[in-house]
Amino acid sequence: MTDNFEPKIDTHLWSNKARNLSPYVPGEQPKQEGLCKLNTNENPYPPSPKVAEAIAQVLVNQAQQLRLYPAPESDTLRQALASLHNLAINQVFMGNGSDEVLAFIFLCFFAKERPLLAPDISYSFYPVYAETFDVNLVKIALRSDFSIEPDDYRQPCSGIIIANPNAPTGILLSVAAIAKLASEHPNAVIVIDEAYIDFAQTSDNQPVSAISLINTHDNILVTQTFSKSRSLAGLRVGMAFGNASLIEALTRMKNSFNSYPLDSLAQAGAVASAIDTAYFKEVCQKVIQLREQLTNELVKLQFHVLPSQANFVFARPKNGKAREMAAALREQGIVVRYFDKPRLNEYLRITVGNAEQMKRLIVALREL
Amino acid sequence: MTDNFEPKIDTHLWSNKARNLSPYVPGEQPKQEGLCKLNTNENPYPPSPKVAEAIAQVLVNQAQQLRLYPAPESDTLRQALASLHNLAINQVFMGNGSDEVLAFIFLCFFAKERPLLAPDISYSFYPVYAETFDVNLVKIALRSDFSIEPDDYRQPCSGIIIANPNAPTGILLSVAAIAKLASEHPNAVIVIDEAYIDFAQTSDNQPVSAISLINTHDNILVTQTFSKSRSLAGLRVGMAFGNASLIEALTRMKNSFNSYPLDSLAQAGAVASAIDTAYFKEVCQKVIQLREQLTNELVKLQFHVLPSQANFVFARPKNGKAREMAAALREQGIVVRYFDKPRLNEYLRITVGNAEQMKRLIVALREL
Repeated sequence: MTDNFEPKIDTHLWSNKARNLSPYVPGEQPKQEGLCKLNTNENPYPPSPKVAEAIAQVLVNQAQQLRLYPAPESDTLRQALASLHNLAINQVFMGNGSDEVLAFIFLCFFAKERPLLAPDISYSFYPVYAETFDVNLVKIALRSDFSIEPDDYRQPCSGIIIANPNAPTGILLSVAAIAKLASEHPNAVIVIDEAYIDFAQTSDNQPVSAISLINTHDNILVTQTFSKSRSLAGLRVGMAFGNASLIEALTRMKNSFNSYPLDSLAQAGAVASAIDTAYFKEVCQKVIQLREQLTNELVKLQFHVLPSQANFVFARPKNGKAREMAAALREQGIVVRYFDKPRLNEYLRITVGNAEQMKRLIVALREL
Repeated sequence: MTDNFEPKIDTHLWSNKARNLSPYVPGEQPKQEGLCKLNTNENPYPPSPKVAEAIAQVLVNQAQQLRLYPAPESDTLRQALASLHNLAINQVFMGNGSDEVLAFIFLCFFAKERPLLAPDISYSFYPVYAETFDVNLVKIALRSDFSIEPDDYRQPCSGIIIANPNAPTGILLSVAAIAKLASEHPNAVIVIDEAYIDFAQTSDNQPVSAISLINTHDNILVTQTFSKSRSLAGLRVGMAFGNASLIEALTRMKNSFNSYPLDSLAQAGAVASAIDTAYFKEVCQKVIQLREQLTNELVKLQFHVLPSQANFVFARPKNGKAREMAAALREQGIVVRYFDKPRLNEYLRITVGNAEQMKRLIVALREL
């Protein structure tokens, strides 16, 4: 919508807050048929077939029930996720996608007085939330290899927010490094945004998610989403895991904003997805395998590829002309994400698609 | 959740904002089977059968598509509603229920410096939003007959918010009175919260909705919902209608908070409901008829019943012992809403149920 924003629009009735907004601009959702869409990190595979079955069941048996408000705290869904992660239900919070959860986190835990620290290169919605909710965001530069160094965060703060794996780099921070951050900042909330964590794995099969730290660190809050690894971007389901007191703050904020953010069908579909672990693991493994293949192909084409643990890769063509390459791919019906920002503007962020899409991409790149 | 709030909870990591919240408490959603639930103003009739059909179609033909993000601005749905009301698409904003729309309205148009005016008796979420978003809410007393008198609002303000019909009274303010308010406050946004407007009608069949004023008053913003008249509380769909510049502010706020508040299934279901005008009118007429019958029965039982244009009535038993009556009804499995507040605590708010529920209620009241 911001693209259509008319400079002459009449803002005399707007609050100062509204006038000063710089809305987030999501990746383009082109309507053109036949496009190879590798720009918004959606999963190339469909959701578990159990999802549609569960929702169809609601429609057949309880369509009547749509007249009633949904479960306000998504209790069945929270219980399913708590069981999955060996947590208590009061350590789980549900929101309308992890973006809504993140908005509530900014309102609940960060202040103007003490800064919030975040990597200078990360999810571009963080600075938008900071501006919307008057949070003093201080950006900490990534190291030259695009990695996050916990020692760089040694300063007083009300919180630290890190996407892990980071976006758009795909680089993973270890659980040990996160534990260190949390221990060094006992009076700050350490938010680990794990939108892509299910595509990460270590060679020794140790935990990669900071969920493993929740019971030992009361200041770690982990956000996750059904939009990526569970192929349900269309259902709008996100969550936070953390100490019960952090979850209580989020619950109170939600209930001061909108009591019922998850509709009945989304709750039913998400429960079905959450308990279909076999399907989930299979899809994640397929994406991981395709990511490794894509990385190998790009390296062969002399790209510099960052070590990704996400469902995308961040890669620099040898000549650094990423903008031109994105435009040339677009002409062939392949859409990738290009960021016109310092340090990022020689790279492309390419979502891992299915085997056919990856083949089409590599053929196109070879020809360029 | 607030009922379960433990006083000893550790809040040292919470922002001041989080510590100071007083969350909204929605009407109870008891899980007990067989209850006659007349406490949350849900529609006793199911949604249009076209809703389940449309969603089932998505599941059959495009379940795959749930992996993709939904249309961020709900364009098809906005266009359907614009057509219904003879508006342009840029005069329509969609949100996750009208509660979310109202939250964005508070952020976009009201400030701390100039007060927001609202009736002292109205939707109890308004003071919650005011506290959450630092808005200076000034309450204007209803007249002794519970009516709203526009002349009482003659003071500088950044906005006025009125539920129309008002809750929990059910009393309707005329379109002419709203036009007068808007004209007298050219620099304030006049928000008319029409959650219940589809159950209102005038004897001369003149418009009751302030939507009829939008093209002549650039400061009127109307909110509506699919939760009541369209029997879709379970889908979470609400909207605002107004001048394009007001809608642009809401769009920018949404995109600074959560880009995709309506999932793909909710959008498809709401479109199907919006275009099934025949079913919609039939349901509204049935509810209106039952409301009139309920009013007559209550009057016979010597209740004082306010003149309701909503899908509930607000009624005072002759002895004023509303609390005891609510408790006695509950013992018989009938749940109505009781507000333990000055001026309201001798009344019951009773949702209009279906014919069978109304019969059960009247029989129980006769026995009491």
